[in-house]
Parts: sequence; structure tokens; C-alpha cells
Amino acid sequence: MVKKKRVVIALGGNALQKNGEVTAEAQKSVASTVGKIIADLSDKYEIVVTHGNGPQVGNILIHEETAATDAAPAMPLETAVAMSGGQIGYWLSQSISNAFQKKGKQKKVVSVITQVEVDLKDPAFRHPTKPIGQFYSEKAALDLTKQKGWLMKEDAGRGWRRVVPSPKPKDIIEKREISDLINSGAIVVAVGGGGIPVYRTKILRVLKGVDAVIDKDFAAEKLAELIKADIFVSVTAVPFAYLNYGTEDAIALQKITPREAEQYAKSGYFKAGSMLPKIEAVTAFAKKRKIGIITSIENLEEALEGKTGTIVS
Amino acid sequence: MVKKKRVVIALGGNALQKNGEVTAEAQKSVASTVGKIIADLSDKYEIVVTHGNGPQVGNILIHEETAATDAAPAMPLETAVAMSGGQIGYWLSQSISNAFQKKGKQKKVVSVITQVEVDLKDPAFRHPTKPIGQFYSEKAALDLTKQKGWLMKEDAGRGWRRVVPSPKPKDIIEKREISDLINSGAIVVAVGGGGIPVYRTKILRVLKGVDAVIDKDFAAEKLAELIKADIFVSVTAVPFAYLNYGTEDAIALQKITPREAEQYAKSGYFKAGSMLPKIEAVTAFAKKRKIGIITSIENLEEALEGKTGTIVS
Repeated sequence: MVKKKRVVIALGGNALQKNGEVTAEAQKSVASTVGKIIADLSDKYEIVVTHGNGPQVGNILIHEETAATDAAPAMPLETAVAMSGGQIGYWLSQSISNAFQKKGKQKKVVSVITQVEVDLKDPAFRHPTKPIGQFYSEKAALDLTKQKGWLMKEDAGRGWRRVVPSPKPKDIIEKREISDLINSGAIVVAVGGGGIPVYRTKILRVLKGVDAVIDKDFAAEKLAELIKADIFVSVTAVPFAYLNYGTEDAIALQKITPREAEQYAKSGYFKAGSMLPKIEAVTAFAKKRKIGIITSIENLEEALEGKTGTIVS
Repeated sequence: MVKKKRVVIALGGNALQKNGEVTAEAQKSVASTVGKIIADLSDKYEIVVTHGNGPQVGNILIHEETAATDAAPAMPLETAVAMSGGQIGYWLSQSISNAFQKKGKQKKVVSVITQVEVDLKDPAFRHPTKPIGQFYSEKAALDLTKQKGWLMKEDAGRGWRRVVPSPKPKDIIEKREISDLINSGAIVVAVGGGGIPVYRTKILRVLKGVDAVIDKDFAAEKLAELIKADIFVSVTAVPFAYLNYGTEDAIALQKITPREAEQYAKSGYFKAGSMLPKIEAVTAFAKKRKIGIITSIENLEEALEGKTGTIVS
């Protein structure tokens, strides 16, 4: 028996939404399509699925902040990330299981709550950049800074939003547990929303949550490295990474080297907060392990066979 | 090396709260005490920790219902249970890990999102009994019945609340994955809030969430059976189950047989929704496997050694 290749598949934060529909029903329906695609790959690959949580944790924060009372206080951001991991992890693991059930097959599938260690010395903590949660008036924003110490920024004329750090992932706390599950034959859903950001305290070195968000591609890449995956795929809305994206001169990148990817990135071809982190993540993986891919969910199977997608290796 | 005994420990829904404090900080602080107790047991036992979610999912539902909009719709109950599983699972697994870290030991600890199968033919679906979420005015309650089909009941003069079914657990979907994790040496946190209630559809037999809540002691007992645990402990606020609880004639039950437990239950000695489900769960386990225990978290270690607590065997 040929050993299956180990693949980490990072689904985009919007991967569970079609036409912007955010009800549980609409998102479960999209999850069921994703589940089928993942299940179809499992004959050939060992699979870990990671996922973003932008729209979902955004709505959790809106609910928590709007409706908080003393008797029902709002949860901090890191706990809200854990909540979104439960929510999306449930939808994904159920939909993957169901895809096997429809094929008449049995397969272990499990969703793991994942903590991701960050470093408080990461420069991101001195320069928070990531807007989260709802929009506030200037006055409400000032009050929140006073009451909770939140950093608030005006967001393109739409109001004021909380801004949090987006540090780099340093370690995946549950990496061994995730490895054990893959080795026992399970498809694992993990590192939801980039993982729950935690740091180690100075003296005791215990884990403590911190309000931040970790880029889900970087976190998934870190996991892929640590569990010695063969392939890391960042799944996005488009089938390739492009040069001159959105213009007449757009060029789909097919097979490129890590060096080429880095040069394109340095030349400013990719948008920060969008294609750039994906390019950085797949390139980092390709340099340390083997193959990094950017493609769409529809093209995932063919891209894994080397037939389409932006393949960095 | 003597094989470790396998124990499933069911923490009460209020187990993370002291003096009714419900902030994340207060709950994490209680979790850290619980974490230490669990970590101290792991030299002698293989451990699965399950937990209730009453206060936590209650607050999630209050936030979701109060602040829902079209752009940020409320999640259904079953998804809210998944969210609370992420939240509490994170707190518990972190606090257990940290307890090992403080001892200078390494131990795998992992929190698993767990689905629990129920039967739509369970009589509970015809007679919903479990009040959840916030209180509404009579008018608002009538509107909710019209709009969402919710069954609403007047609650002891405090207003109207949604009432949902509390069916019996039939199967634990992730039982094999949980077993694999224990076998690989991990402490597993699972079946949060009694698990996410799902049923199998008629023809395809796929899993589908259903708005219900599963008693956390029954769900934990089902898991304990399925993973062939040696001991099942229902942890509660008091060190024993009592006859004539709260009166001058209160008698702490120590070692009793399943038959005695059943006779006391039949005679109405235990309060429904409180001690009764715990007695039923530990008795069911004692009949099918070995030892069922009811005790407090402080007495957990001694109870496992047979020195205190209500031991049914």
C-alpha cells in the first residue's frame, strides 16, 4: 500500500458563504458541498482542514457586545474565537461525515479546539492593525477605550472599530494530538479562525489567552510544518494567484519557485490582507517542506494532482 | 506496569462558577482549580472530562436573541451548544495543560467537539420540558411561536421562556476518535453541554442538528459505556447523594447497590432535574459496567479510591 500524502487544506474565512448569506442554514448548505469535496480526496490523502472565521466571529462579537449585561457579560475576543471554532468545526465535521455516509463509507472525522501560541514581543502587539467587531460612533469609541482599553480606529468613513494585533503563530499547542488523530485514520478539522491566540507567561510558562487574531493561512502553514505535511493548500475564491489581478493584463501564476513567489511579492504584485499572506504562507511551506498551492475549492482535487492552481515548489 | 483505570468525569453545569460569577475571567479562575484536580489524577487514571453548559449557553442565547439582525442572524440552539463547547472546552483544556506545566510535566490534553445522536421518536420531542434562554413578555412569546415555531411556557411568574425537548442520548458520534485519543495518552475534554444534539435522517441516514438539549449526565454515561470506562463520576456541588436532602433527617448515601439506588429513586427521594438524573446515570453505568460515583470536585480523588462519595456498584 502506498503511503498517503498528508495535506493541510486552509479554507478561506468566506468559504462557508455563498451570496453573502450568513444564516446557519445557508452556511451549513455550503459546508455540505465542501464536505463532499474533502471526503472525495480521502482515498488518496491524509487530510487536516483548517478554516477562517472572519464573518462568524464578527457576528459573535456583534451579538456579545450589543447585548452584554452584568448578568450575561460579553466574552473576550480569544474566547469568542473558541466559540467560532466550536460552531464552524461542528458544521464542517458533520458535513464531512455526512459525505462519507452518502458514499456508504465509514470514516473518522473530528473537530479539535486549537490554541496557537504567539509571542508578546511580536511587533504586531505594538502596532495593532486588524479591525474586528461592530462599528461605533466616535463617542462610543472613546468610551470603550476608557472602559476596556480598546484601541479604536476610524474605518473609511463607516465609523469606529476596535483594532487588534495580528501576531505570527509560533507553535500549535495541540499539534501532537492532531498528529495522533491523523495517524489513527481520522480527518481532522483544526486551527479554526487561525486558532485561539495564547502566550506563555514569563515565569510559570503557562498558557494564557490574549486578544488578537492570527492569520489563518499562517497558522495553517505552521501546523502543516509541525505535522510534517507533504502539501499545504490555501483555498480561496479564485483558481490561481495572479499578477496584475483585476486588470486586462492579469496573468495566472501556475508552477513557480519559492524564489519567484518572493520576488513577485516584493514587487508589490499581491494585495496585503488578501493574496499576500497566502503567497507568503505557501512559499514558506514550499521552502521548508515540499509543495504549497493556492487554488479554489472547485479545483482542489486537480491542483493536488499538479494539473491546475498556483503551485509553489 | 498496571493498566490505568479509565474514568469519565462529568462536571456539573455550574462547575465553572463560584458565587455566581459569570465573567470569562471568573470562570477561567475556577477552571484552573478544576484543572489541577484533574491533572493530579492522571498518574492513576485515563481521564475523559465532560461538562454541562447551562449558564454559558444561556448567556450565548441571550446575546444571540437580543442582538440578532438580518446581517448578523442568531444561530440555532444546536449551533449555540457547539459554540459553548468551544468556549468551555478551551477553558478546561487550557487549565488542565497548565496544571501539568506547573508540575513540570508534559501531557497531551485536547478538547473535541462532540455530536450526540438522539432519536426523533424519543417521547421528549412530544413533551418539551427544558426552559432555555431569556425571559419574554407574553406578547413577545406569542410572536416567537408564530415566527419561529418555538414552544413558549410561562415560568413561575418570571415571564415566558422557550421550552425545548430533552431526549435521551442514543450514540456518541465521535466515540472512536475520543477512544483513539485516550489510547494515545491524552486527557480528553468532550461531550460539552451534553453534546450537540443530532439525529439521522430517514433515508440517507445523515446527521442533522436538532434544537434540543441532552442531559449532560446521561450523555457522559453513554460515552463512558461506549468507551468501556471502568468508573463514571458525576461531580456535583455536594459530596454525596442524600436521602431527605435539606432536612434534619438527611442521610448521606455511601456504598449502595444499583438495586438500592433504583428503589430510592422510585420512592421519590431525589429531585427531578437535579439529583435524580445523576442517580439514574450512575446506576445505569454501574449495572452495565462497574462503578458509578456521585461526589464533589473536592472529594473526587478520595471517592475514586472508594473512601468517600456515593458509590453505586
